[in-house]
Amino acid sequence: MIIVLKPEATKKDAQEIIRRIAALGLKPLYMPGTERTVLGAIGDERVIGKLRIENHPLVERVSPVLTPYKLVSREIHPRDTVVRIGGVPLGGNYFAVIAGPCAVESPRQMHLTAQAVKRAGAKCLRGGAYKPRTSPYSFQGLGLEGLEILRDVAQRVQMPAVTEVVEVADVAAVERYASAFQVGARNMQNFRLLKALGQSRKPVILKRGMAATVDDLLLAAEYVLSEGNPNVILCERGIRTFETATRNTLDLNAIPHIKQHSHLPVIVDPSHGTGVRSYVMAMAKAAVACGADGLLVEVHHNPMEALSDGQQSLDPKEFVRLMRSIRPYVKLAGKRM
Amino acid sequence: MIIVLKPEATKKDAQEIIRRIAALGLKPLYMPGTERTVLGAIGDERVIGKLRIENHPLVERVSPVLTPYKLVSREIHPRDTVVRIGGVPLGGNYFAVIAGPCAVESPRQMHLTAQAVKRAGAKCLRGGAYKPRTSPYSFQGLGLEGLEILRDVAQRVQMPAVTEVVEVADVAAVERYASAFQVGARNMQNFRLLKALGQSRKPVILKRGMAATVDDLLLAAEYVLSEGNPNVILCERGIRTFETATRNTLDLNAIPHIKQHSHLPVIVDPSHGTGVRSYVMAMAKAAVACGADGLLVEVHHNPMEALSDGQQSLDPKEFVRLMRSIRPYVKLAGKRM
Amino acid sequence: MIIVLKPEATKKDAQEIIRRIAALGLKPLYMPGTERTVLGAIGDERVIGKLRIENHPLVERVSPVLTPYKLVSREIHPRDTVVRIGGVPLGGNYFAVIAGPCAVESPRQMHLTAQAVKRAGAKCLRGGAYKPRTSPYSFQGLGLEGLEILRDVAQRVQMPAVTEVVEVADVAAVERYASAFQVGARNMQNFRLLKALGQSRKPVILKRGMAATVDDLLLAAEYVLSEGNPNVILCERGIRTFETATRNTLDLNAIPHIKQHSHLPVIVDPSHGTGVRSYVMAMAKAAVACGADGLLVEVHHNPMEALSDGQQSLDPKEFVRLMRSIRPYVKLAGKRM
Amino acid sequence: MIIVLKPEATKKDAQEIIRRIAALGLKPLYMPGTERTVLGAIGDERVIGKLRIENHPLVERVSPVLTPYKLVSREIHPRDTVVRIGGVPLGGNYFAVIAGPCAVESPRQMHLTAQAVKRAGAKCLRGGAYKPRTSPYSFQGLGLEGLEILRDVAQRVQMPAVTEVVEVADVAAVERYASAFQVGARNMQNFRLLKALGQSRKPVILKRGMAATVDDLLLAAEYVLSEGNPNVILCERGIRTFETATRNTLDLNAIPHIKQHSHLPVIVDPSHGTGVRSYVMAMAKAAVACGADGLLVEVHHNPMEALSDGQQSLDPKEFVRLMRSIRPYVKLAGKRM
Repeated sequence: MIIVLKPEATKKDAQEIIRRIAALGLKPLYMPGTERTVLGAIGDERVIGKLRIENHPLVERVSPVLTPYKLVSREIHPRDTVVRIGGVPLGGNYFAVIAGPCAVESPRQMHLTAQAVKRAGAKCLRGGAYKPRTSPYSFQGLGLEGLEILRDVAQRVQMPAVTEVVEVADVAAVERYASAFQVGARNMQNFRLLKALGQSRKPVILKRGMAATVDDLLLAAEYVLSEGNPNVILCERGIRTFETATRNTLDLNAIPHIKQHSHLPVIVDPSHGTGVRSYVMAMAKAAVACGADGLLVEVHHNPMEALSDGQQSLDPKEFVRLMRSIRPYVKLAGKRM
Repeated sequence: MIIVLKPEATKKDAQEIIRRIAALGLKPLYMPGTERTVLGAIGDERVIGKLRIENHPLVERVSPVLTPYKLVSREIHPRDTVVRIGGVPLGGNYFAVIAGPCAVESPRQMHLTAQAVKRAGAKCLRGGAYKPRTSPYSFQGLGLEGLEILRDVAQRVQMPAVTEVVEVADVAAVERYASAFQVGARNMQNFRLLKALGQSRKPVILKRGMAATVDDLLLAAEYVLSEGNPNVILCERGIRTFETATRNTLDLNAIPHIKQHSHLPVIVDPSHGTGVRSYVMAMAKAAVACGADGLLVEVHHNPMEALSDGQQSLDPKEFVRLMRSIRPYVKLAGKRM
Repeated sequence: MIIVLKPEATKKDAQEIIRRIAALGLKPLYMPGTERTVLGAIGDERVIGKLRIENHPLVERVSPVLTPYKLVSREIHPRDTVVRIGGVPLGGNYFAVIAGPCAVESPRQMHLTAQAVKRAGAKCLRGGAYKPRTSPYSFQGLGLEGLEILRDVAQRVQMPAVTEVVEVADVAAVERYASAFQVGARNMQNFRLLKALGQSRKPVILKRGMAATVDDLLLAAEYVLSEGNPNVILCERGIRTFETATRNTLDLNAIPHIKQHSHLPVIVDPSHGTGVRSYVMAMAKAAVACGADGLLVEVHHNPMEALSDGQQSLDPKEFVRLMRSIRPYVKLAGKRM
Repeated sequence: MIIVLKPEATKKDAQEIIRRIAALGLKPLYMPGTERTVLGAIGDERVIGKLRIENHPLVERVSPVLTPYKLVSREIHPRDTVVRIGGVPLGGNYFAVIAGPCAVESPRQMHLTAQAVKRAGAKCLRGGAYKPRTSPYSFQGLGLEGLEILRDVAQRVQMPAVTEVVEVADVAAVERYASAFQVGARNMQNFRLLKALGQSRKPVILKRGMAATVDDLLLAAEYVLSEGNPNVILCERGIRTFETATRNTLDLNAIPHIKQHSHLPVIVDPSHGTGVRSYVMAMAKAAVACGADGLLVEVHHNPMEALSDGQQSLDPKEFVRLMRSIRPYVKLAGKRM
């Protein structure tokens, strides 16, 4: 850790801090400059954390040398991790599309949509039973009934099912009904939920929060891995910025950044990432081109009737076109789907 | 609701939509323009929601006429709501300061800090037992033990206690030990938690999320009120922007905006809002000046040893100075503390 | 224009506003609702602007029906515009890469870099003579001398030259030395400069400002077109958000959005868009995949010695690899380069 | 400067960099860690800049020890600077309100408004003759004619006049007609303009750009000071964030931050900072409370007829109330107006 002292810190102040560093068994470093003194503390990160040197009134700022995340880091685990949802591999050379409606609305809706996405080449089926909605007056999802519909339809069309979990108390139920958990943007820092999911071995699709940096996302994944579940798939779905032309600003820079710093698979949700049906195709192709390991796409057999997110949902024909269009991009990226 | 059609929509398309509006018992309006046609739908908001007209491929955009929140709105409830934490009133003409450490660390730490803030004039004691931390390797709070310490100390110094609740399963315990719930920024849209708190009658201090608009905050409060708990105190604590000089960007514009649109009390957290000890005082005064009903301030008997947020915590002397400084501002604002 | 009145507005107030609308020769519309009254004003946009109805104390908000930009709009001009830099077409089915160093530093540096980018397949040469730098203590560019070097080298390698213009007084000089003007992000709303460039017929590459919405960018382009110069190329180069992992957040959503709303060509600058050399390739491919008409790439014959932006500049070998990699993407997009 | 090397950097690589540091006459420092090596370079900042070590492929990141600005820094110049507009002092213990319309529209409008703000206690008169507007179809200001009206009215009411300058070519004219230059948010990084203003001795009110950090603002001021003009007044006027309830997000945190790091006076523009007439008063009080040295307030004798920014302009009565309300706050802040 690098410690920049305030200009008013004297040599004596510096020595006192050096003593505190040494007292913890860390190696202190002393770099007096013309206008500021810089100190260093070398050793075990956990011990360095105990210094709490950022609280010191004469410390201007501290700057850690190492990344705060460990288990998700590519430094520790250089090779790409492949996560399997049901039997579907994702990561490394494996590319997969997860598709389905925003929310499970009825057996008929799920069945029609599931058949359509399966035929078009999607490998996993998505559908929300628990819907976190900004307004209490919006459709909140069918709950357990939705989970049952999802499971039944998924079995019939033989696709693994992915669904959102919003609460520790629901983890067991969702685990029973689905092949993978989805953690939504609003719950990315629901650490209690992340810890609970760390107890499972089923894959966790972790969506980036609207105000989360990529480092925040990696630290959230670290919560799951540090509890014992290595099966995390990261998901870029757009961040909140001043731009209002689109629902969110899809931050595709995050893909090469995550690929460089982490071994975990990362997928992109162009539906939430744009919020506009007619931009989904372009951003799906861009996501593949910059290295994404998969896509999460909202499809509804009849978007005009969708109870949520109809504006950004593709209809079956549009989805067929999307799948056809991305195929050569997946191939160019050296992956198979 | 106002509905702007795409330029390619024909008169026939408009009539079809008008028929759908009328079929739901709503009053349709037809405004043909030179380049775009605009439609209106007048009637019960819930019925209008069922139109899902934003999903229609010929609709360019829709724009609701009314605010999406109801129970929290000043239109419905013109007079200021006064919420009581223990016996301490907040809102209307009542101003109160809630102070204490970021986290409960030990009986000694809590006791020393509680005595100090009480003496200086704080009315409620804060202290976190469950700490949502960005990294799994940071101090996570003492949990139930922390709640016990908080309650014991609060009783000894005779102050109502405020503490964060992060999970539905903890609501009952926190309700037993504390006089008010705090919902942190990361949980502002944990709707299951909000609904659970709506079942209680104890006050809920609802902190604004880092990427939440003021409307999102009001809708989150609407979740609590719509479940039956009218005792919500809103809290501005800074949003995430590109500025890195401060930990967050304290959005004080939110105070007059909330005051105009809602009857709920609103307080400000200048500690998280700046993240810098030496800016807390200035922003506390500004908060009072623009109409806040209270402050949430982090104080530690010895910030250098704080296990979390030491950089932004005041020591007892600084807190005495803050309380002394804000007094004339509270008076100027026509409030008493 | 749609006008939502405040709840306190009476029927009489509405009628007074309706009279003002009618007095300007516009067609007024009256939509009384249960809680709010909505009015409409139909007719010529310029006349509507004269209403200044947003200033009225009883008006809650106004919402224009049409886009504020006209000449850049695809509604008015449905077919893609092709802009030619020197003889190099850009837009429609024509894709082109503009490459070169951030700043012109010396004849040798320009020559080595120009040869390298030409060989690799770039069609235009870039290089800044006037450098807007955040700090007055950073390298500010060679000015006129830089323009001369740029022109000489460009002639020698037979590539059209593109260079930034930062000031009305320099427009004539830049026009003489270069084949296209570049307007940097910091000058996107330097309206006097835009008007001056509207007097020229040479192409203007207009970079999006760091805090500019896509609509702001289109309105800035409208300044140039409305003065008579139709040759504008828009450029997405990243916006400023809370994310610090990359220098900017490249907003590729802007590409399909611009393509849908405007006929102008749009290119992407993955160098500034990421600020990180190792992410440039991935984002270049993503840009092509989502529909960009070209790329603006920083290349330096020896990035380690670059006087500005060395961190994001490719060396000649990396640029060869980039050109080779994007070729199949350009083809997939149905374009030729 | 602190230099963190990539994990793959060997001891030999570190030594090579150390040699480069030493070759420039700087003092190198070597801090080998368990997972990363950290280097230091101590000495003259300008020499350090020549290292361009951030371009090195084995360098992960660099972190300067000192602030990038010098002349505006409180470290170099500990006492508050007082700037005089005409005879009106601003900064230190002097507080002043600058008020007037957004744009000069006519002699009558300027005269009525000027009389009103003078009577209410404003010390300087503002009014824009050159208006940078997002759309080319909005009112662009009266230009030279506007400057003449402004000067005539200012002389008649005996107030110093402040007006915006948008272009180097206008500096001389504005200098002739007004007592102080205003640089708008869109021109904060128009460095050529800043340098030209550095040649003058008249005060420059420098407004923060919509995407500018406080450090960017201080560096922009540094441009003016480094050219020889010490009379800069900084102005916080809101930044662009995701929040749409207000036109901008007024970042009052900037006030204590600037006060701590710079000796320059800083004022606040609550009109642009909110964009909503009814919030201006609250934010004006907050600005005074957190330490601002003055206010810039938009006032129009009849906001309903204002050609620009009518929504955020106060009428004379509201302005009288604002002046009356802030007086005790100015006194509490230990200043006189």
